[in-house]
Amino acid sequence: MSNRAESFLVGLIGEGVSPSLTPPMHEREADVQGLRYLYRPIDLLELSLPGSAVGDLLTAAFRLGYNGLNITHPCKQLVLPFLDEVSEDARRLGAVNTVLIQNGRFIGHNTDFSGFGSALANGLPDAALERVVQLGAGGAGSAVAYALLSAGVKTLDLVDVDPARGAERAAELAALFPDSTVAARTTAELPPLMLLADGLVHCTPVGMAAHPGLPLDTSLVEPRHWVADIVYRPIETQLVLQARAKGCRVLDGGRMAVGQAADAFRIFTGRDADPERMRSHFLELVNAEESMAEESKADKALAGAGH
Amino acid sequence: MSNRAESFLVGLIGEGVSPSLTPPMHEREADVQGLRYLYRPIDLLELSLPGSAVGDLLTAAFRLGYNGLNITHPCKQLVLPFLDEVSEDARRLGAVNTVLIQNGRFIGHNTDFSGFGSALANGLPDAALERVVQLGAGGAGSAVAYALLSAGVKTLDLVDVDPARGAERAAELAALFPDSTVAARTTAELPPLMLLADGLVHCTPVGMAAHPGLPLDTSLVEPRHWVADIVYRPIETQLVLQARAKGCRVLDGGRMAVGQAADAFRIFTGRDADPERMRSHFLELVNAEESMAEESKADKALAGAGH
Repeated sequence: MSNRAESFLVGLIGEGVSPSLTPPMHEREADVQGLRYLYRPIDLLELSLPGSAVGDLLTAAFRLGYNGLNITHPCKQLVLPFLDEVSEDARRLGAVNTVLIQNGRFIGHNTDFSGFGSALANGLPDAALERVVQLGAGGAGSAVAYALLSAGVKTLDLVDVDPARGAERAAELAALFPDSTVAARTTAELPPLMLLADGLVHCTPVGMAAHPGLPLDTSLVEPRHWVADIVYRPIETQLVLQARAKGCRVLDGGRMAVGQAADAFRIFTGRDADPERMRSHFLELVNAEESMAEESKADKALAGAGH
Repeated sequence: MSNRAESFLVGLIGEGVSPSLTPPMHEREADVQGLRYLYRPIDLLELSLPGSAVGDLLTAAFRLGYNGLNITHPCKQLVLPFLDEVSEDARRLGAVNTVLIQNGRFIGHNTDFSGFGSALANGLPDAALERVVQLGAGGAGSAVAYALLSAGVKTLDLVDVDPARGAERAAELAALFPDSTVAARTTAELPPLMLLADGLVHCTPVGMAAHPGLPLDTSLVEPRHWVADIVYRPIETQLVLQARAKGCRVLDGGRMAVGQAADAFRIFTGRDADPERMRSHFLELVNAEESMAEESKADKALAGAGH
């Protein structure tokens, strides 16, 4: 009824999604726009469900009045057989992270790629895109590479710790973008490649709170390079900090997270999200998390001192 | 996470529930209280699901982050085997219309009975409850009879078009309330029974928009009787209008609808709803519906005149 048409119920299916910042980002944007909006994390680990449950969850979501779902690891490929329609880009990418439920039909989209694309366009306007080095060719890396090639990158050098995966991904992308060159490369090749590159994109877990460190020898990064990271916990990764200190133009991982969310919001509601407003709320959320983590560390230190 | 704790996702499972006024009543009350709240109708007819699907829908609702559900025809008994816990009153009544989902457990309540009870207490304070005639002993009638006996009615005369159902229900209620007298009666017995009664409660579909008319010969109704109707579409049934014209104290069906909703709201959120605020919103909703029905009738008449 009119009630269902004017309000939005959406969710995020995946493993370990409970702490995701996507639900509060969507809800806050909807609040500003005056929409009734509820975004639920649906955590397969907490529910003890396998990724293959995604089809049943889609059916359940339709029955229970959901308007759409975001989909993350390990379901972005597993969800494909359950969809009635898939956007051209998501089909080419072979991965869906956003499902619109409309008149009982499931329509798949991919805002990982579009989110990175708009982050790049908004956060690094006029960045040179002739030649780019990308570290990491996993699921997120594939979407980012697809976005880079869609944005006009002519030569993409793809480095992955797993050479077989890197080669497979490079071949797939080369077939999709016949006018560009996509090559699988090794870490040993980075020094000459960085000399040729306009920019560096980082898509591995290195730099996350649980995997601190740097994904490459940063002596290879020069002030003329632009540097994009997709890690956003912390928002200021060591790579981002060092690149900025060198004078590089930098795109932090929050830009992609916000780009994904803004695109999904538009797919779910038919309304544009304001990306700058969403980013400022995202930064608030990340900072609040980081303060809580600091406090908890301080509490533990105090407790340790007392006993 | 904190998000889930501070926001509420609830639904109503049953046949033909899409036009229910319960969702907007809950949502508006929650808005006033500053709660993020979404209430979805889950219509078995639209979904082509049988009443026996209620167990699967409960599991799905838990997985998809629902905090609770209202349950209506045909699922109020069918839901019982799927519950982990049932309130004492709902167990005695053998019917559940409200399920709280808490830490993965399903806890059943009945706010049909409690809603009528609070409607009676708020809408007809100090009504004499020595002896009451009740018309209709179906599902809603059972809950109302239970509420009347809980409120202290000493003699309840129960009239149903199906004498076998009336007798069965009377026997069940008599067993639950051994200090009261509950007797199955026939329409033919109404003249002497109304002479003895303090009040009349109406629980059949007669008087609804689809079943217009009067459920009894209103010459039997005297100004000294109080009269309660549970039909609320329209809010001013012929019974309510005629009883009020005679000078009777009257309780319209909206009071029970609001009572149910307020009790369910408290079960879902742990917060009291304001019954007078909820009632005034309910009356707005009913009036808007009735105006739309009038306009549609007028449109049809005009269209008829034109061709």
